[in-house]
Amino acid sequence: MKNEMKPNVVGIDIGGTNTVFGIVDQKGTVLASNSIKTQAYQELDNYMNALCDGIAKLVADTCGMDKIQGIGVGAPNANFYTGNIEHAPNLPWKGIVPFAKMMSEKLGVPVALTNDANAAAIGEMKYGVAQGMKDFIMITLGTGVGSGVIANGQLIYGHDGFAGELGHVIVERNGRPCGCGNKGCLETYTSATGVARTAREFLEKRANEDSLLRKIPADQITSKDVFDAAKAGDAIAKDIFAFTGEVLGAALADFIKFSSPEAIVLFGGLAKSGDLLLVPLKKAMEDNLMPIFKNKVKVLFSGMKDADAAVLGASALGWDAK
Amino acid sequence: MKNEMKPNVVGIDIGGTNTVFGIVDQKGTVLASNSIKTQAYQELDNYMNALCDGIAKLVADTCGMDKIQGIGVGAPNANFYTGNIEHAPNLPWKGIVPFAKMMSEKLGVPVALTNDANAAAIGEMKYGVAQGMKDFIMITLGTGVGSGVIANGQLIYGHDGFAGELGHVIVERNGRPCGCGNKGCLETYTSATGVARTAREFLEKRANEDSLLRKIPADQITSKDVFDAAKAGDAIAKDIFAFTGEVLGAALADFIKFSSPEAIVLFGGLAKSGDLLLVPLKKAMEDNLMPIFKNKVKVLFSGMKDADAAVLGASALGWDAK
Repeated sequence: MKNEMKPNVVGIDIGGTNTVFGIVDQKGTVLASNSIKTQAYQELDNYMNALCDGIAKLVADTCGMDKIQGIGVGAPNANFYTGNIEHAPNLPWKGIVPFAKMMSEKLGVPVALTNDANAAAIGEMKYGVAQGMKDFIMITLGTGVGSGVIANGQLIYGHDGFAGELGHVIVERNGRPCGCGNKGCLETYTSATGVARTAREFLEKRANEDSLLRKIPADQITSKDVFDAAKAGDAIAKDIFAFTGEVLGAALADFIKFSSPEAIVLFGGLAKSGDLLLVPLKKAMEDNLMPIFKNKVKVLFSGMKDADAAVLGASALGWDAK
Repeated sequence: MKNEMKPNVVGIDIGGTNTVFGIVDQKGTVLASNSIKTQAYQELDNYMNALCDGIAKLVADTCGMDKIQGIGVGAPNANFYTGNIEHAPNLPWKGIVPFAKMMSEKLGVPVALTNDANAAAIGEMKYGVAQGMKDFIMITLGTGVGSGVIANGQLIYGHDGFAGELGHVIVERNGRPCGCGNKGCLETYTSATGVARTAREFLEKRANEDSLLRKIPADQITSKDVFDAAKAGDAIAKDIFAFTGEVLGAALADFIKFSSPEAIVLFGGLAKSGDLLLVPLKKAMEDNLMPIFKNKVKVLFSGMKDADAAVLGASALGWDAK
């Protein structure tokens, strides 16, 4: 006898700062959600207890655990095949964390994991601007840069479950040091922190030029500050976005040569910069493409709300969790 | 009623110099093969007539056309979805060539196309060192650099049929001019012609240093000459291979971040250079990987004979041609 599908799933998005979780129904509606501070739990057991308690309470208030088909989790360095989180540099717990096993034992529900950007890609395919697409690349522009690659209508997990780390493709040999141990990774230029780094570099290099950004102590400048200054017409701030767009656009051109996607979908804080980022990005992307790829690939901004996309994407894994 | 599968297929490998074709059975045995000179036919109609005549004769001598299930073709810029060859820079016929349609009308057998490196990847998965693998990347090192990406056990064609052009990923911004119109493509460094280019550069830069390669007029040096000189202990020749391996290894590290393959399979003339290429390649590859990918990905040389692999791979498409 085939087991009947239960009506809801839980999606969890584990970030370096917050862990967001929500209950999602079969139509993709987030019925309820909540979050805990990831960094408040340096001990894995304490974190797991707090997260499971939070989920149990949210589920009890919404539908009851017997209505939950499974739990899907998006987390950095999450391995889809093993259910482990392995050596995630931005999370407090070191080594290999058997996350799926720990959580499913506590909550009595099957749990599946993948990295946060992969989860976002699945969310985008199921509920976002990539609905109906069989080939696209999701790029998440947040504190870091993540990616999820959909080809032939499937997420590419790779042989070990770790595919889609395009934030660590090297765009500048011997460039900026990255947390991963290499230099010149895309993430060091086009993440929110990368933009802030560019701001400090540009302000130092153009010391004689005035800028709205000089009102802010250099080590406190955020990508949001750069965005606001650029919007206000600040020349250095606009050049920072032009530079960021050029670096990202040239990298996207290389990604296109890999999987020839119908679209690139940008997601996350920086994706809200609109034409400031998009205009230089598209120019650099097209300039770096061969004729067979030119003027074919759409660049789209995710239509989903940040938290929803991650939770929805993660939750989609929950339907098939075993 | 399901049509019964016929016992043989035809595989065709269209290169800039030669077009090789063969008859292949269900076990992957090349029963007979022949070739024509691609460049001898500047007119498409003449080429198509000569090729179809050659195939018809080979088939008549072997099994008869009623025993041919389909024809599979590997060709540069070949579009799997449309059956066209589109704007191939190294072929004599410009624009969009409706290759599959023309050939199937002439021979009365269904014809399917993909690019030569994709065909080689399929051949490697069916008959070569990648048997049983679900995730690997094929890199062909010939006059140019081609690639075929297998993920989740399937070839990635991309939304338009053109995925897998890793020879044109840019490894050096504003680097060597490439036939594709861009600068610094992988192909300009790690193809056979790229190695010859490096030789000319190194010989010029190190003008005061003796080398076996100086016996050959600079514009006539081939990658084979460099290989022979390196084997004989020539310092400049060895450095040329070290440089080539470093560039390729660093590029492979970036490709691994995309699809996390179980193996990279190298194919073509340069792949025969063995440790001269492999040792610096592996070092550069590992140096440019993040911890989660280190010491995991095999680098293999194709076990197939050059002509066979291309014909076998192309022929594999013939079974499903419609």
